[in-house]
Amino acid sequence: MTVDEPARAAAQAALDAKTKPRASLGRLEELAVQIAAIRGTPKPGRLEAAVVVAAADHGVAAEAVSAYPAEVTRQMLANFEAGGAAVCVLARAAGARVHVVDVGVGRPTGNIARGPAMTRTEARRLLDEGATSAAELDADGVGIVALGEMGIANSTVAAALASALLAVDARRVCGRGTGVDDEGLARKVAVVRRAVTANPVDHDDPVAVLAALGGSELAFLCGLALGAAERRMVVLLDGFISSVAALVAARLAPAAAEAMIAAHLSPEPGHRLVLDALGLEPVLDLHLRLGEGSGAALCLPLLDAALAVLDEMATFATAGVTDAGR
Amino acid sequence: MTVDEPARAAAQAALDAKTKPRASLGRLEELAVQIAAIRGTPKPGRLEAAVVVAAADHGVAAEAVSAYPAEVTRQMLANFEAGGAAVCVLARAAGARVHVVDVGVGRPTGNIARGPAMTRTEARRLLDEGATSAAELDADGVGIVALGEMGIANSTVAAALASALLAVDARRVCGRGTGVDDEGLARKVAVVRRAVTANPVDHDDPVAVLAALGGSELAFLCGLALGAAERRMVVLLDGFISSVAALVAARLAPAAAEAMIAAHLSPEPGHRLVLDALGLEPVLDLHLRLGEGSGAALCLPLLDAALAVLDEMATFATAGVTDAGR
Repeated sequence: MTVDEPARAAAQAALDAKTKPRASLGRLEELAVQIAAIRGTPKPGRLEAAVVVAAADHGVAAEAVSAYPAEVTRQMLANFEAGGAAVCVLARAAGARVHVVDVGVGRPTGNIARGPAMTRTEARRLLDEGATSAAELDADGVGIVALGEMGIANSTVAAALASALLAVDARRVCGRGTGVDDEGLARKVAVVRRAVTANPVDHDDPVAVLAALGGSELAFLCGLALGAAERRMVVLLDGFISSVAALVAARLAPAAAEAMIAAHLSPEPGHRLVLDALGLEPVLDLHLRLGEGSGAALCLPLLDAALAVLDEMATFATAGVTDAGR
Repeated sequence: MTVDEPARAAAQAALDAKTKPRASLGRLEELAVQIAAIRGTPKPGRLEAAVVVAAADHGVAAEAVSAYPAEVTRQMLANFEAGGAAVCVLARAAGARVHVVDVGVGRPTGNIARGPAMTRTEARRLLDEGATSAAELDADGVGIVALGEMGIANSTVAAALASALLAVDARRVCGRGTGVDDEGLARKVAVVRRAVTANPVDHDDPVAVLAALGGSELAFLCGLALGAAERRMVVLLDGFISSVAALVAARLAPAAAEAMIAAHLSPEPGHRLVLDALGLEPVLDLHLRLGEGSGAALCLPLLDAALAVLDEMATFATAGVTDAGR
């Protein structure tokens, strides 16, 4: 995908004719014109949104890097299906659907502290599954795909990927995740360092890094982001983990980053580093650290509002308002 | 109104039992428990919202402090009625109603650069009108009142009020409003200084300051905020101008500030000063500088999301999820 610069310019011109001082809706206008550029039309209209929650288990959970036991991944899968999880509630409030995809619950990847998470073939298969999911959502009329995830220990996996891809020490990309204490955080940092050392792959080969440091749900979301961007769907990132999946996607296809919007900034220390690498400025900063796609779901009404402004606001001409503010 | 601390604590306990790490929804949880405390119940449910847009003209517009001519106030009033203005579009997208109140369009206040905006009697009448409007909205089932305004030159009026009430120089509270150039900004600063000097009232008497430096829509919104807070309605502030009206309300009844939520931070330099004086941290920071209540309308889905989480999320117990994250 290449973003459509004429569509962006036409959308901005349309906004400039609306009954408001130029650019006075700030970031909302930027979001509207970015979506126009992604969709390839100055009139994208209102868009259907889906939050895709990919769930998987991780061998590295054995290293006690999470505040929760590994069994919680499967329990939360049931909670997603029942509609009681945060992402379900927030997506419902936003009028968006939730797609839960089990890509490895109860079938953990290899423990990255000791060796590779998966084979290159397995990583490629998950990338393809994600891309296929994007194609299905596109065929189903979805215009915005929000990336969500669930997997006990997956903030450790994401930290290992970020450490390798950004060439930064584990300490800069490890945070408390869903709530480890000081001791747990120190253990997490040590595990991420061991994982990077235990998997001496070429860091310029994104698929090799993905296979080695893994995360089945991260590989799936990476494929989903690539497929969605290719099909001119808006790719809405949630927190640190989904943003790392998006970073792998951007390493594979740099143009994909232009289809991405960062819903929010999480307190995970690595999140800002990853968003900076993607060239993205988060829309919200509400200290959300839940994951699941919850922050992305919370951001959806703002994207809808941006599109509503483009779609429905009167112009100076039609409303008979004097435009003295040029 | 006194906020209900037991209701706040009970709402927080309910959130702590939900299937998520404690406090992992950050500011969203704080909003939910604040609304519980305001409403006086741990289960506030979902709330109807109304954006009240008070419109008026200002004698100080004669000093050329705005990028737009004074006639735009009346033109925008028609645009509000037709539903084409930004606040209408954003409120519609959020499922909120818009109430437009004409409190002085075509009947400008006195030019504050030369003397008082209105008499104390007039100010009191507008405060009462605002309070009456709050009572009507309450009776009509509204739980969240968002403050909106329209009035060419009213950012100058708000700056004069802020300068007097916060005892700061005009330069610290004057911004570009809807878009004045450098020369216009310098003129605005000079006009605000003249207004404060031309109206030597006791700055510890909020009604005296309000009458002197005025703004019919600001006086109305001040009364609306007071009446809404008294009735345990959530008072949602928009940008600099509505926040100054809220500041006058808090000077008259300090407890009213506890019912307030700041929807966003505007680039107007005085906005942060006013919010600091109110003890409020803005929810959004999207460089919005339109007014009308547009930023407040944009924030409404976030408040609804906070209430949905409190209302609809499953608990660890009901969902059968292991709660190891205490």
